[in-house]
Amino acid sequence: MTRPDPELEPDVFSRRCNSRDVLASLTTRWAVLALVALVDGDYRFNALRRRVDGISERMLSQTLQTLERDGFVTRTVLQSIPPRVEYALTDLGRRVATLMVALVDEVEEDLPEVLAARAAHDAERGVSAT
Amino acid sequence: MTRPDPELEPDVFSRRCNSRDVLASLTTRWAVLALVALVDGDYRFNALRRRVDGISERMLSQTLQTLERDGFVTRTVLQSIPPRVEYALTDLGRRVATLMVALVDEVEEDLPEVLAARAAHDAERGVSAT
Repeated sequence: MTRPDPELEPDVFSRRCNSRDVLASLTTRWAVLALVALVDGDYRFNALRRRVDGISERMLSQTLQTLERDGFVTRTVLQSIPPRVEYALTDLGRRVATLMVALVDEVEEDLPEVLAARAAHDAERGVSAT
Repeated sequence: MTRPDPELEPDVFSRRCNSRDVLASLTTRWAVLALVALVDGDYRFNALRRRVDGISERMLSQTLQTLERDGFVTRTVLQSIPPRVEYALTDLGRRVATLMVALVDEVEEDLPEVLAARAAHDAERGVSAT
């Protein structure tokens, strides 16, 4: 295993830098959606699972654990019957998630252009549209 | 397979929406690094491979093919001996990549905070630091 060198400035382009793995864990398909959802407010586990349409219980749990461990999300057990668990962004998480909202907005806005590019690319190569 | 509904506004939270897959393909570990690298200028394949430290030839090739198909990157074959292939961002690619630069800068800046959170989290659970 390559050990990070604490003397180096963080640089995601270096495979020796931890920032690359942090970036990768933040930008998984599910982490992006969970972080963006949490910008709108705190969520209980099941509500977040409904919001992030299609995520499995196990995958949401793993995603939140990683985000909690790295300080992006807090997990609070509410003293209710039955006990409920609520997730919220930390200040750190909010800084990152806000930038992801901008990215998601851009991708949603760009979707027609992307689909047109894809269709043109496939047509040029004689691939039938899927 | 779930088919996208063209009547819907793009929404990454819907599993039926293509924008979710576009977002996921843009935010793979390697796509983020390739896009961010290309913000600084055009790259030939081998130079980009050196910049994105640790990526395999096959993975860079796949990543660039997906980005080209979706209209984020152009691939130009230069008439040289030997022939060389140059990659550049499209306007669309630049819009997305610029937002990723902001995210990467934030993550690099946040790294000490993330590592401290991780160490505190692991210490609390009696996990030895790795």
